[in-house]
Amino acid sequence: MSRVKVGIIGSQFEADIHAASFQIMPEEAEVVAVASPTEGHAAALAERYGIPRVFRDYREMLREPDIEMVTITAPNRLHAQMTVDAANAGKHVVCEKPLCMTLEEADLMIDTCKRKGILLQYAEELFFTPKYLKAKEMADHGAFGKIYLVKQSEKHFGPHGDWFWDVEQSGGGVFFDMGCHGIAFCYWFLGRPAIKTVYAQMGTYVHRDKTRGEDDCICVIEFADGAVGMVENSWARRGGMDDRVEVFGEGGCSYANLHMGNALATYSEYGYGYAVEKAPTTKGWTYPVFEELWNYGFPQEMRHFARCVRGKEEPRSTGEDGRVVLECLYAGYASAGRGAKVGLPFRPRGVAKPIDLWLETGKEQTK
Amino acid sequence: MSRVKVGIIGSQFEADIHAASFQIMPEEAEVVAVASPTEGHAAALAERYGIPRVFRDYREMLREPDIEMVTITAPNRLHAQMTVDAANAGKHVVCEKPLCMTLEEADLMIDTCKRKGILLQYAEELFFTPKYLKAKEMADHGAFGKIYLVKQSEKHFGPHGDWFWDVEQSGGGVFFDMGCHGIAFCYWFLGRPAIKTVYAQMGTYVHRDKTRGEDDCICVIEFADGAVGMVENSWARRGGMDDRVEVFGEGGCSYANLHMGNALATYSEYGYGYAVEKAPTTKGWTYPVFEELWNYGFPQEMRHFARCVRGKEEPRSTGEDGRVVLECLYAGYASAGRGAKVGLPFRPRGVAKPIDLWLETGKEQTK
Amino acid sequence: MSRVKVGIIGSQFEADIHAASFQIMPEEAEVVAVASPTEGHAAALAERYGIPRVFRDYREMLREPDIEMVTITAPNRLHAQMTVDAANAGKHVVCEKPLCMTLEEADLMIDTCKRKGILLQYAEELFFTPKYLKAKEMADHGAFGKIYLVKQSEKHFGPHGDWFWDVEQSGGGVFFDMGCHGIAFCYWFLGRPAIKTVYAQMGTYVHRDKTRGEDDCICVIEFADGAVGMVENSWARRGGMDDRVEVFGEGGCSYANLHMGNALATYSEYGYGYAVEKAPTTKGWTYPVFEELWNYGFPQEMRHFARCVRGKEEPRSTGEDGRVVLECLYAGYASAGRGAKVGLPFRPRGVAKPIDLWLETGKEQTK
Amino acid sequence: MSRVKVGIIGSQFEADIHAASFQIMPEEAEVVAVASPTEGHAAALAERYGIPRVFRDYREMLREPDIEMVTITAPNRLHAQMTVDAANAGKHVVCEKPLCMTLEEADLMIDTCKRKGILLQYAEELFFTPKYLKAKEMADHGAFGKIYLVKQSEKHFGPHGDWFWDVEQSGGGVFFDMGCHGIAFCYWFLGRPAIKTVYAQMGTYVHRDKTRGEDDCICVIEFADGAVGMVENSWARRGGMDDRVEVFGEGGCSYANLHMGNALATYSEYGYGYAVEKAPTTKGWTYPVFEELWNYGFPQEMRHFARCVRGKEEPRSTGEDGRVVLECLYAGYASAGRGAKVGLPFRPRGVAKPIDLWLETGKEQTK
Repeated sequence: MSRVKVGIIGSQFEADIHAASFQIMPEEAEVVAVASPTEGHAAALAERYGIPRVFRDYREMLREPDIEMVTITAPNRLHAQMTVDAANAGKHVVCEKPLCMTLEEADLMIDTCKRKGILLQYAEELFFTPKYLKAKEMADHGAFGKIYLVKQSEKHFGPHGDWFWDVEQSGGGVFFDMGCHGIAFCYWFLGRPAIKTVYAQMGTYVHRDKTRGEDDCICVIEFADGAVGMVENSWARRGGMDDRVEVFGEGGCSYANLHMGNALATYSEYGYGYAVEKAPTTKGWTYPVFEELWNYGFPQEMRHFARCVRGKEEPRSTGEDGRVVLECLYAGYASAGRGAKVGLPFRPRGVAKPIDLWLETGKEQTK
Repeated sequence: MSRVKVGIIGSQFEADIHAASFQIMPEEAEVVAVASPTEGHAAALAERYGIPRVFRDYREMLREPDIEMVTITAPNRLHAQMTVDAANAGKHVVCEKPLCMTLEEADLMIDTCKRKGILLQYAEELFFTPKYLKAKEMADHGAFGKIYLVKQSEKHFGPHGDWFWDVEQSGGGVFFDMGCHGIAFCYWFLGRPAIKTVYAQMGTYVHRDKTRGEDDCICVIEFADGAVGMVENSWARRGGMDDRVEVFGEGGCSYANLHMGNALATYSEYGYGYAVEKAPTTKGWTYPVFEELWNYGFPQEMRHFARCVRGKEEPRSTGEDGRVVLECLYAGYASAGRGAKVGLPFRPRGVAKPIDLWLETGKEQTK
Repeated sequence: MSRVKVGIIGSQFEADIHAASFQIMPEEAEVVAVASPTEGHAAALAERYGIPRVFRDYREMLREPDIEMVTITAPNRLHAQMTVDAANAGKHVVCEKPLCMTLEEADLMIDTCKRKGILLQYAEELFFTPKYLKAKEMADHGAFGKIYLVKQSEKHFGPHGDWFWDVEQSGGGVFFDMGCHGIAFCYWFLGRPAIKTVYAQMGTYVHRDKTRGEDDCICVIEFADGAVGMVENSWARRGGMDDRVEVFGEGGCSYANLHMGNALATYSEYGYGYAVEKAPTTKGWTYPVFEELWNYGFPQEMRHFARCVRGKEEPRSTGEDGRVVLECLYAGYASAGRGAKVGLPFRPRGVAKPIDLWLETGKEQTK
Repeated sequence: MSRVKVGIIGSQFEADIHAASFQIMPEEAEVVAVASPTEGHAAALAERYGIPRVFRDYREMLREPDIEMVTITAPNRLHAQMTVDAANAGKHVVCEKPLCMTLEEADLMIDTCKRKGILLQYAEELFFTPKYLKAKEMADHGAFGKIYLVKQSEKHFGPHGDWFWDVEQSGGGVFFDMGCHGIAFCYWFLGRPAIKTVYAQMGTYVHRDKTRGEDDCICVIEFADGAVGMVENSWARRGGMDDRVEVFGEGGCSYANLHMGNALATYSEYGYGYAVEKAPTTKGWTYPVFEELWNYGFPQEMRHFARCVRGKEEPRSTGEDGRVVLECLYAGYASAGRGAKVGLPFRPRGVAKPIDLWLETGKEQTK
C-alpha cells in the first residue's frame, strides 16, 4: 500500500516539525507539497526537506488531486476556514492546537468534515509522548489505584512567532497556547470523563510590554469521576522549555519530567550547537535533550494520522477532543474573569475570541 | 548568661521534636519539665531526653518559678487556653501551628500576651529550614527579579495521632494541618504583603472511611504586590513525606525539594533502620534523609525562640503571623465551599472551627 | 528499492531485540526467517513477530537465496563459525558483541568476510544510543575542549541466559559480557585513537556459587591521544539495569544516565507491568523507562545495518572495531592476572578463552 | 565544665573554616587566638570572628597557658614541626589533612604526641559529613549486605592557595590534596580493614602550565576483607565542587551526592551572592548549596575534637588514621610510576615528598 501524500499549510515552527516528523518516520507518509503566503518561507522549508511542490495559496494546493491529507499549522484564527476548504476539497485534515477560535467554528469544522466523510484529526502530541504514554500505561494497569489528581505543566519564556503575542490573531495568551495541551492531557489520561467545572488564575506578570494576553496561568479542573486536573502554564519561566506530568492515586504516584528529566547534565565553558527548545545559552550548566521531536511524540503522531487515513488505526485525537478542550478554555477565561469556578456545559454567545471572556470582565481583579 | 529554662506541654510527635531540637542545639536553652495528661507518655519523653520534672497538669507546670518559656504541642483546640494560662503565669509561649481554632481565639491569645508583656512565638519551622532560607536569600539578593509565583507543597499519606482525623478536635483536614505551613511560607517569602484573595480546591478523595476532613487541597493566594502563592497539600500521597518549594520571577526560578532532593538514592534487599518520616518501607529503592530535624530547621527555630526570650534576636515568627495564616485558612475553606475566590479581610461570625466553612456549605460540589 | 531481507540466528533475549527492532523501524528491512536449534524457541519468536520461515539449523537458513543479511545472537563461542558460514553463503553479517572468543577467530572472520565481499557489522548499540550520541555531538562540537577522561558503566545483578555464567561457553564474566560495550564506547567516543595500555581490577564478589567468571570489574584504558577511558561493569549491582556515561574535558563535563536519568519517578502499592530490564519489582519506588529499545538505539542500529547493505550509509561499527575491543579485553584479563597495566599490541598465543588470562595466573591476588 | 580554648595556626581558607565551625557549634569550644606569619591575614581572621589574640609566630601562641588545643591549617610541609612543637608545649593537636609529607614525619608526630600524652587528632571531615554518616549507618545496619565496592570522589577545577600547585610545598597534586579524603573514607567506611594493594592512574592533563603535580587521578584499593575502594579526584573538572560517595554490596547500593544532590536547582539571569565552593558563576543554571560547612561536617568535627579533649568522646580520627592514608598515598604514587599495583606495607626509604615516587620513575608513561 502506497504512502499517504501530505500537503503542509504553513512554513514556520510547527510546519518544520511536521516536515521533520514525516521524515523521521517515513514509512506511512510523504510530504509532497507545502503552501505559505509568505514568499520564500515555503520554498525554504521545501528545500530543507526536499518537498517537491510549493504553493503561495493553500487553496491552490488543495486542488492537487494526489494529496490525501493536509496539516494546518497556520495561526489559530485561520484553522476553521482552512479545515472547511480542505474538507470540501476531499482532503483529510490534521489541525494544530488549539482547534480554532470559537465553539461555533469548532462545530462547523466537525460538521463539515463529518458530512464530507473527512477525518478531522487534532494534533495533540501529548497523546503520543513516549514518557507520558508510560505514565498512562501504568495508570491503566492499576499502578496508582483510583487517581484523584493529574497535573500537566508546560512553561517557557515566551512563544516563537510574533502573532502569538497579539491576542487578536492568537485568541489568547499562554493558557490558550499551551493550556490546551494540559487540558487535553488530563482529559485523555483520565479516560475522557465529563468536565464539571473549571477555575483559572491568570495574569500578565512579566510581558506587559508585549501583550495583553496572560503570561502565567494555573487552572484547576473538576472531572465527573471525582478526579481533579491541574494545568500550569507560563510564558514567564526562565531557563528553557519545561514540560512535566504528575499523577496521584490512592495507591501511588508518578513524576515525569520531559526535559531536565531526560537530559544530560552538562557543563561547558565554550558552548555547543543546541541544548533544548528556547534554551537561553549552551554555556555553563545546561540540560541538552536528545531526539527532541521523537521524545515529544511528533513523528509517532504524524505516523498515526497517516495510518488512520489508511484505516490501519482508529483516530486517537479528533476534532471532538479539540472542541472539549476549547470549551474548557472558554470556561477557564470566564472563570479568571469572575473569580469563581465555571460549570460545564458552558457556551456563551457572541465570543469573538476566548480571552475576551477574561479581558472584558475581570482582568482588573488580578492586578 | 544562663540558658533559658523550658517546659514542654505535650508528649507526642511534636513534643519529641521540641525536646530533640533543644538537645541538638543546647547552648541557649534547656528543657527542664514536660506536662501531659496521659500517664506514662510524659514520663517516657522525660526519660528519653533526661528531662528532670514531669507533670500531668500543665497548669501545675506553669507554677514552677524557674521556667521562662513553654512550648505548646497539644491538639489545636487547646492552644488558646494554654497560651492564656501561660501568659497569665508569666511564661513566654511557643505555640505550634496552626495557631488556634478561631480568629476570636487568635485575638485573645495575641492580646493577652501583649498585655502581659509575654512573647507569643509561632512555631513555623519553614522560616528556619536551611534549604528554603537559601531560596529566600537568593530572592532577596535579586536572583529572580520580581517574583510572580511562589509554590510550597507538603504531602504524605496521613498524620500521626488519631485526633488529626477528627475534625472536632483538629478543626480541619490537611489544609488546616499542613496548608498553614505553605500559607505562612509564601507570605513570609514575599515579605509579608497583604493577602487579597484566596481560592481553594479540596476534597476527601482517599480517606473517607477515616475522616470528614479534606485529604487533598490546592490553594491559590493573590497578594497585594501582584504575586501569587500556590499551596498544595495532601494526606493521600504515597511514598513517604514530600516537601517542596518553587520560586518563579521574571529573572529566574528555583526548585527546592526537601526530601528526595537531599536524600541518598538507596536500594536495599534487607532494609535498615529509618529512611524518612512516614516512609512505607526501607526495602527496595528508598530515599533516606540525614539529620532530619536539622534539615527541617527545628533546632535552629527553638534556638531562635530562646534567644528572643533573652533579647538576643528579634522574633521572626509571631502570633500575628499565625493570625494571618488563620484568616487565610478561613478564606480557603469558605472558598472551597463557594467555588469562588474569597477576598480578605474575611471575618465571618460564629465559626466554631475553620472546616465548617466548607463542610456546611459546599462539600457536595466536589463529589 | 526493496527492503533488505534478514534472517536471525538465535531465538533468545538478543534475537527478540533484533526482531522487535526491525519492526519498530520497518522501512529498510524485514525479518523473513529465524533459525535456532532449540525446538519451539524459534517458532515462538516467529509467531511473536510474524516471521514466515523457521529453521532448526542455521546452515539450512543460509541456503535461502533471498536472504541478504543474517544477524548472529548465538552464544559467543559460535560467532566465528557462523560468520564464516554466512560469508561463504554470500550473506552479510551482523554479529552480536563480543565479536568472538579469540583474536584468531576475529582475524578469520574479518579476512573471510573481506575476501567474500561481505559486510561484517559489529552490533555495538552504544554507537546508536540517542542520549550518548548527544554527548558525542557536544564533544565533537568542542563543548568540553580537549577530553581527558571518558567513563562508561553498565551494571545489573546478572545476565539472562544460563550460558553466561559458564565461562567455557561465554569466554568470560561481566568484563567480557558488558565491558566490551564500555571499551567500544570510549574508543569510538574519542575518535578511535590507538589503545596504549589497559589495567583491570576484577573479582567474583557475589556470585561465587554460580560462576568462575568475574562479577565486578573496573578497567582503566590509556589512549594514544593522552585521554583515559574508565569502564565499570557489574553483575552484582542490585536495583535493576544501570547504564551511564560521563565525559570530562578541560572545558566542561557531561553526565548521561540511561535509566534512572530518563525514567519516571514512580511509587506504586500495587505494581504494574514492566519497569526496566532486570528490575526486581514494580512495587514501592521504581524507575520505569519508556520505549526501552529505542532509547538503547537498537532499532536505529538495525536500520543502519540494513542501509549499509544497500550502500546508503557507511558502516559505523565493523569487525575491526570488534577486534580492537577483543584485544583490549585480552589485555584487561591479563592485567587483572598480573596486577599491572598491559601494553598494546597484545597478542598472547594459545588463548582458548579470554578469561583464562586471569583465571590461570592471577585470580588468587583478588581473594 | 568550661569550653575548650583553641588556637588556630594559619589564616587562610582552612583556618577560616575552623573559626566559622567553632562559631556554628559554640557550646564545647572557643577560639581565643590565631597565629600566622603573614601580617594582616591573622588580624583579618581575628576581626572576622572576634578572636581576641593574634600572633605572627605560632610558637609564641603555644606559650599561652590557657590554650588547650591548636588546629594546624598551615601548608603540608609544616605539619610535622608544628605538631611536635605543640605537643612539647602540652597542647592537644588537630592537624589538617594530609597528615604530613613523609612516613618518618608521621611516626615522629605520633610518637611525640603519645609520649607527651597529647591527643593527635586528624582532621578528616568526611568522618563527620551528615549525608555520608547516613550511608555508613545503613551499611552498618546491614542494608547492603556484604560490601564489595566503595567509591569516593572529589573534583573541582583547582585549589585555593598558590602553594598547592608547587609540589615542593604541597608534596603532591590532587591525589595528595584530595585523594587523602577518599582513602580515609573507604578505609573508615569498611571498618578499617588492612590495605593490601593500591593502584593509581594519574596525569597532568589540564594544568601543565601551572604545576608538575597530577590534576586527575583514579585510585583502586584492595582491602584485606576482599572489598575494593575506588577514589577519584580532579583539579580539572569544571562546574564547581563535586563530592560523591557510592556504596555497593551484594544486597544493595547507595548513591550520595554532596553538592548537586543537596542543592536547589536554580536559574538566574542576574546572579546572586554565593552558590557553592569554586562555582564559576551564579548566573544561568546553578546548584547553590545551603549551610555548606554543616553539610561537610566541619562544625560537628571541631565539636568532636573539643569533646575528646574533655574526655566526653573517644577520638574518631587519629594520627594513626592519617598515617595509614599517607602510606596508601605513597603506594599510589609509586603505583602510578610503575604501572602496577603496589602491595602494603610499603615504606620506601629516602622519600622527600610523596609525588617523587611518581615523578622520578614513571610520569613519562602517562604522556
